[in-house]
Amino acid sequence: MNYDIASLDMHKRYGGKLEIKSSVPLETKEDLSIAYTPGVAEPCRVIAADKERAWDLTMKGHTVAIVTDGSAVLGLGNIGPEAGLPVMEGKAILFKRFAGLDAFPICLNTQDVDEIVETVKRIAPGFGGINLEDIAAPACFEVERRLIEELDIPVMHDDQHGTAVVVLAGLLNALKVVGKNIEDISVVISGAGAGGMGIAHLLFEAGMQKLAMLDSKGIIAPGREGMNTYKEELAARINPEGRTGTLEDALLGADVFIGVSQPGLVTAQMVQTMAPRAIIFALSNPIPEIMPDIAKEGGAFVIATGRSDFPNQVNNVLAFPGIFKGALEGRLRKITPAMRVAAAHALAGLVPDPTAETIMPSPFVPGLADVVAEAVKKAA
Amino acid sequence: MNYDIASLDMHKRYGGKLEIKSSVPLETKEDLSIAYTPGVAEPCRVIAADKERAWDLTMKGHTVAIVTDGSAVLGLGNIGPEAGLPVMEGKAILFKRFAGLDAFPICLNTQDVDEIVETVKRIAPGFGGINLEDIAAPACFEVERRLIEELDIPVMHDDQHGTAVVVLAGLLNALKVVGKNIEDISVVISGAGAGGMGIAHLLFEAGMQKLAMLDSKGIIAPGREGMNTYKEELAARINPEGRTGTLEDALLGADVFIGVSQPGLVTAQMVQTMAPRAIIFALSNPIPEIMPDIAKEGGAFVIATGRSDFPNQVNNVLAFPGIFKGALEGRLRKITPAMRVAAAHALAGLVPDPTAETIMPSPFVPGLADVVAEAVKKAA
Repeated sequence: MNYDIASLDMHKRYGGKLEIKSSVPLETKEDLSIAYTPGVAEPCRVIAADKERAWDLTMKGHTVAIVTDGSAVLGLGNIGPEAGLPVMEGKAILFKRFAGLDAFPICLNTQDVDEIVETVKRIAPGFGGINLEDIAAPACFEVERRLIEELDIPVMHDDQHGTAVVVLAGLLNALKVVGKNIEDISVVISGAGAGGMGIAHLLFEAGMQKLAMLDSKGIIAPGREGMNTYKEELAARINPEGRTGTLEDALLGADVFIGVSQPGLVTAQMVQTMAPRAIIFALSNPIPEIMPDIAKEGGAFVIATGRSDFPNQVNNVLAFPGIFKGALEGRLRKITPAMRVAAAHALAGLVPDPTAETIMPSPFVPGLADVVAEAVKKAA
Repeated sequence: MNYDIASLDMHKRYGGKLEIKSSVPLETKEDLSIAYTPGVAEPCRVIAADKERAWDLTMKGHTVAIVTDGSAVLGLGNIGPEAGLPVMEGKAILFKRFAGLDAFPICLNTQDVDEIVETVKRIAPGFGGINLEDIAAPACFEVERRLIEELDIPVMHDDQHGTAVVVLAGLLNALKVVGKNIEDISVVISGAGAGGMGIAHLLFEAGMQKLAMLDSKGIIAPGREGMNTYKEELAARINPEGRTGTLEDALLGADVFIGVSQPGLVTAQMVQTMAPRAIIFALSNPIPEIMPDIAKEGGAFVIATGRSDFPNQVNNVLAFPGIFKGALEGRLRKITPAMRVAAAHALAGLVPDPTAETIMPSPFVPGLADVVAEAVKKAA
């Protein structure tokens, strides 16, 4: 099937993918008097007296804003807010399908950090949480940091943290398969954007000790050209000696490669130089850093990609619906790294006997989002 | 039935009134590949090449933002964005029920005109129209004027214009009942807020010549105390001679009284001083400026209120769903006064033989919003 044509047809036929409906009866004059005037004045008065009641008397308690500035949509780059809308609608229906949450796209006509932060703060009263989406690095880091500080509802940039939770879940199972411990492994991450940064920080939180991180200019190192605040911070931690080099250099003896970067960066020869029973997460999409068959040729033991047509798909939909479900049900003010690690362990636990070809649960496992949500609440 | 208790119960049971759903199938992996990645990249690319395509490929073409700052919610006053949410949710389900449009509440955490305008402009890309709601006068006038100027999608403050359209529709039929022409009548409007201003301007557009307008300090007149820019503008037009006085003074010999002000301002004695076959729209809600039986005692011939338990309910739901439906279907950049007059005539025409007790169509008349939408598009 040609998904491009099928998708275009479908979007045209339905006018996108979202519908906003009444969840209450609205057939008679009496229904109107309860749902709208005069009855509606009463919940208004109750909330006016105690703002917290908006959580149980309105949509706030189950509604998430999906906020983008259209600056880094899928692999399409800076295509703007209108063109990002089909992805945000897609995200919204995933929230509903997998966690029963109501999510609404907010596509912003600005790519200025201050303006994004300001705007999200102003529209926040009607939402229970904010899912930031497809905002380019490094702006996404500051936007998220400031919103987490300044808002009293949970805020998560899914490109950083959703991906990271699913990668960690898969890695935990892959490590069981190869018989290694997270504390001992040496990891290489290719890509220092939103995804790479989110993964790096979460793996540290989960116990990883040794990391090399690369961007398009090679290994990140303090003071190297092409750095930013966020890369500098991380480089100071993982590479204080200021080692530089290429991906080839970094992979020598590494246990794990995680790519969130460019198609075709890794060769079979490079995999051969990694430690025995190497683990490869080649997440560039749709074309991975190395195709699974070539990685296998090079001796990789467990291979994951972002694609649904190979085993071990790293799919954000495993994480974000359940994480927000837990955060909203628990009325959590923040989604912490500890909660995300707990979510990853919960996801990993849904695969009782992981093998090289099954380190990930299927997103269609019934109750999956509830398992994640419970883990998040328990970690709170 | 106690609507307060029933409404509070219902809001609690359902968690408000809104649900956001997929309008497309989402059961299989293949569905996911069409609605989300990889297929979704194609509509993104098409819109990136031509922003206009967002109208037919996304929700934009059928989605309206209901924007409030919570400064003038129902008769409850400045109760803030959270407490305004139940009303905005109610409005959203009316959009769906009566026009098939998808509408979403945006409750703003600011009451500053510049910030409201700025915020709405930033979130506009995902919406086909903006319904401003329950924003206090005079801020509402500037917010609306600037957004109409600066956005390329239709913007309407329903408290001004939705009310005005329904009042004009009812007035047109009431004039048929009493056998008077709109060009000849003298009208008194009590209340110079959003509703009063909207009604005054629309009645002029429809042919009315003689108007006296009052606020809480009496007849508005150039240079009088307690005026604002908008009152000054109107006063210069309707009262250049600077006549001042009370409601009692104004009503002497008037053909029509329209109240959007305070309960109980008008007495039977005052109605007696009006012209024969007087028309009364007493729209203060839930307690009108004069109760229908008392107005009748005073000799009023046609009486309308905002209440559903008396004949001739002036109900915004007759207007805004169809107006926005027409504006979105016609891809109209603005909703003009001429379109609103056309909408009012269309509504009035839905009552083939108006009587003193039936000047308004029922909102449940099938196809009512379509009739209004067609009138709006035809006037474009």
